[in-house]
Amino acid sequence: MIDYKKIQNIMQDIKNTQEIDLRIDNAKIADVYRGIFFEGSVCVHQGVIVGFSQMKAKKVIDANNAYLVPNFFDGHVHIESSMLSPEKFAELVIPFGTGTVIADPHEIANVKGLEGIRFMIESAKQSLLDVKFMLPSCVPALPFEDAGANLFAVDLAELIDNENVYGLGEMMNVPGVLMQDSSVIEKLALARDKQKMIDGHSPNLDGANLDMYVLAGVRTDHECTTVAEAMDRIQRGMYVMLREGSAAHDLVNLLPVVNEHTIKNCLLCTDDKQCADILKRGHINDSVRLAIAHGIAPIDAIKMATINVAEAYGLKDKGAIAPGKEASFMLLKDFENCMPYAVYINGELVAENGKYIAKHNDEKSILLEELTKSMQESMQTILPQELILSIPSKKARVIRVLPHSLLTKCEVMDIATDEQGNFVFEQNKGMLKLAVVERHKKTGKVGLGLLHFEYGLQNGAIATTIAHDSHNIVVAGDNDADILFALQEIEKMGGGIVMVSHGNVLAKLPLNIGGLMSSAEPQEVANALQKLYTLAKDHYKIWEKADAFMTLSFLALPVIPDLKLTPQGLFDITKFSFVDIDATK
Amino acid sequence: MIDYKKIQNIMQDIKNTQEIDLRIDNAKIADVYRGIFFEGSVCVHQGVIVGFSQMKAKKVIDANNAYLVPNFFDGHVHIESSMLSPEKFAELVIPFGTGTVIADPHEIANVKGLEGIRFMIESAKQSLLDVKFMLPSCVPALPFEDAGANLFAVDLAELIDNENVYGLGEMMNVPGVLMQDSSVIEKLALARDKQKMIDGHSPNLDGANLDMYVLAGVRTDHECTTVAEAMDRIQRGMYVMLREGSAAHDLVNLLPVVNEHTIKNCLLCTDDKQCADILKRGHINDSVRLAIAHGIAPIDAIKMATINVAEAYGLKDKGAIAPGKEASFMLLKDFENCMPYAVYINGELVAENGKYIAKHNDEKSILLEELTKSMQESMQTILPQELILSIPSKKARVIRVLPHSLLTKCEVMDIATDEQGNFVFEQNKGMLKLAVVERHKKTGKVGLGLLHFEYGLQNGAIATTIAHDSHNIVVAGDNDADILFALQEIEKMGGGIVMVSHGNVLAKLPLNIGGLMSSAEPQEVANALQKLYTLAKDHYKIWEKADAFMTLSFLALPVIPDLKLTPQGLFDITKFSFVDIDATK
Repeated sequence: MIDYKKIQNIMQDIKNTQEIDLRIDNAKIADVYRGIFFEGSVCVHQGVIVGFSQMKAKKVIDANNAYLVPNFFDGHVHIESSMLSPEKFAELVIPFGTGTVIADPHEIANVKGLEGIRFMIESAKQSLLDVKFMLPSCVPALPFEDAGANLFAVDLAELIDNENVYGLGEMMNVPGVLMQDSSVIEKLALARDKQKMIDGHSPNLDGANLDMYVLAGVRTDHECTTVAEAMDRIQRGMYVMLREGSAAHDLVNLLPVVNEHTIKNCLLCTDDKQCADILKRGHINDSVRLAIAHGIAPIDAIKMATINVAEAYGLKDKGAIAPGKEASFMLLKDFENCMPYAVYINGELVAENGKYIAKHNDEKSILLEELTKSMQESMQTILPQELILSIPSKKARVIRVLPHSLLTKCEVMDIATDEQGNFVFEQNKGMLKLAVVERHKKTGKVGLGLLHFEYGLQNGAIATTIAHDSHNIVVAGDNDADILFALQEIEKMGGGIVMVSHGNVLAKLPLNIGGLMSSAEPQEVANALQKLYTLAKDHYKIWEKADAFMTLSFLALPVIPDLKLTPQGLFDITKFSFVDIDATK
Repeated sequence: MIDYKKIQNIMQDIKNTQEIDLRIDNAKIADVYRGIFFEGSVCVHQGVIVGFSQMKAKKVIDANNAYLVPNFFDGHVHIESSMLSPEKFAELVIPFGTGTVIADPHEIANVKGLEGIRFMIESAKQSLLDVKFMLPSCVPALPFEDAGANLFAVDLAELIDNENVYGLGEMMNVPGVLMQDSSVIEKLALARDKQKMIDGHSPNLDGANLDMYVLAGVRTDHECTTVAEAMDRIQRGMYVMLREGSAAHDLVNLLPVVNEHTIKNCLLCTDDKQCADILKRGHINDSVRLAIAHGIAPIDAIKMATINVAEAYGLKDKGAIAPGKEASFMLLKDFENCMPYAVYINGELVAENGKYIAKHNDEKSILLEELTKSMQESMQTILPQELILSIPSKKARVIRVLPHSLLTKCEVMDIATDEQGNFVFEQNKGMLKLAVVERHKKTGKVGLGLLHFEYGLQNGAIATTIAHDSHNIVVAGDNDADILFALQEIEKMGGGIVMVSHGNVLAKLPLNIGGLMSSAEPQEVANALQKLYTLAKDHYKIWEKADAFMTLSFLALPVIPDLKLTPQGLFDITKFSFVDIDATK
């Protein structure tokens, strides 16, 4: 909240000089309290809105009847999914009118624990974006995972009092809550005792189980996909996020939830949206645009993107155009495009016509350097013999990916082997070898599996260090040489995405921050990503039925049914156990 | 907020025993989030709502299709105006479905400062009513007043961290805020620095001045009387209280303010409502009834009396029927009467058919005993010669009360005197002598004035220790003997209201707590009050054009125009100075 000393200074200054810094005239001001746009002026002094009257101002701007709207909030976002550092993410989203995000640094926490979270907080502080952090509640996703960290309540306690920490991130361990797993309850208690927010994640939960989940203190959910799910949660006082991200498009489906009563509990969020998508479609302004295009009144769409989030998270000096609120707002001409031509943060013009114009921060982050170095040091070099896949029975459990889904099936297939009983590519045309290589603690663990030929890669390999949730290295290829070469490239880059063929790098995206994010410019990262996608789709015809890289990224997440690969081998969640690749075992 | 240990216990208990304390079936449950009533069951365990499913319960109650509604909140109340101790006030209002009040102990603070506030907090704690306190911001009302205390920020700081203190009470000193009077700003800063609420009081304020008042941190106003005033405040993010008290009836006038957008910022309050009124008409349930009778949808009226107040004041576990909320709700058959037949607090039935049935607290309050004793000791005995009113010029400034208003006019009248130039009753038939006697610090100050004969008392005197805001003794009479007798009776009672005639007490109401409140039963106090009113109205024909006692009570409040009487003499606010009763001076 704005320090009261600052408010006092502002009041004194105005009293003494009878002059303010900035006045914007002829604006159609979004009034989220009365639910209207009214024509008038907004007065700003020292970065704070001070009123609506015709005060004498050092600078007067004519809004020419444009809309003046509070900057938008993203109610729940994993900044890591943008593939950008918080600083660069800020520069990307601010021109679209985003001013505040509620971020759960769950991905980097799986890689580097508290050190990763601290980096995110520090990096965000270097930016003009106001990032409020929720401490990741489920690191790792499952107790046996080879994540880079294991965060208990006692660890989170180190950061809970941080001024930018607003609570506990999405509590995905629903069974843990319902069974009152002590390590889960301790985390909830930590947030509750500090009177902080607890975010949820509870797809399909209903009835008495949903009651218990809410009783336990969980207050939000961004995983609703049906109106009934959303209404069940609002009935219980939860805030429901209408998500519109790169992969999940729930917003339009959920709009029937919004009415004069429920709207207060409806917030907008992206959850996961990568930088190329943001560059192309926008950020929360795109959600606002979409909602309006589907019949929501502009002021209601704005409320879901501003004051509703501010009030849900207790951000009292944000989310509205009113005296005492931060002077953080945008000017825009229409809601068909919903693209601001000017964005102000704390009274300063920071973006114009989609371009970030505020000063970049040029300080080199020590935390970033340390993080990058330690990531490289923790990667292990894989030897050819470690890729040998022994299946003497010639019957293998093969992972079959499903179109447009993160789900997989376990398929038992006859496969060809050499005399030693080892898988050979030549007689299994089109089938890919999949490897998940532990990259956090040099444990030497490498899990091997087979990927059904539908995935469709030929004459090469692709590898990525984005591999939910533990973010080990996932690599798939149709020959061992390229698989090894891709792994070497990953090691060289200190993490990222790479596509290789016959010993050549076709395309790559270095992700120097924990193998998840880049400190490069958003456009540069988006271009590299675009090149990877174009190659994968047009040239290699990989997995046309969905996103090739995202599919790969989720092949190592054992909490999603049915068969996934971890550094410890294949895991079948339907059995909640590891299974041998040899189907006879 | 409910301690998380308690939540854990509840969850464990349910998991272990699969049984809850209480289930209420067949209720039409008020859902303030979805804006509907839905038919179903409410499950309660250890005083907390745990869900809506058909859990096995130790006790099952059939609501027979009655409405189940969260207990109501009074958004702003001076409990002192009920003339009851907080404990007795609780027993009075709970049967009407009031469960939580935001109280400003402004009156007792003017009498006994922090000691008075501490008594209120302690007394409230003995009750089942949840009383959240706002620290009085303007004690005394004007710097020169003869109040019992002078509270600066440093004094309020002693109580700001009290668990039941939620912020700073109504900031009436609007000029002080606008001029940035340091003693005012320090109080605002105290509340803001603790992230606590600041209540307002700003009739007629608008434009740039209202902007500054909001910028200074004031967040509520209960003094709106017009739709425009209310809308001006909502536009700036303030919460507007729709007041319905004993004297002020603003609710119906303000209902046009309420729409789907503004409703969130509309709260119900009584401000000042005395016990006889509450007994006769109800408490906040009467406001809800009235709003519904004037066209507000029942669920919207309920929202203004429940969740809206809870959210405005950050009371996260209240104001709704949902898992994790306090099991504090009422059952009622219709909204025409809006009278609950059963009221539950923390899962216990505490009132039935208008009767308080929970156990009374029988502990004697040491704070109360001390308070009563010290009040008696601080009163001064007035001698006959102190009532002599010298007006040699025979031209006097006379107070003329205005019908149905707290305003007065200063009227210069020719009056008759004796040879010494002293006022005599005989030749000024119908004109009354008014005295305001300092009662807090034995300063010996007695202010004398004349009251225009319209007030209408004959053959006697009335006196009261309720005299806003300093609560000295105000007495009016048509002969000095009865004036002195009334003062003696007040001293004997340790404060209260008395009506005397020819040396006899006609009726009296002892107010043993600071001369403002009684520790007697509500019905007893209401009866005594009723007797006073009946006598005043029917027998003595005093001031038929408004409330005789309230008119008297406000004759000593110098902040209300034009002419008032203080222990230091007549004060004319239009001149902002004391004036002599002799109109030639």
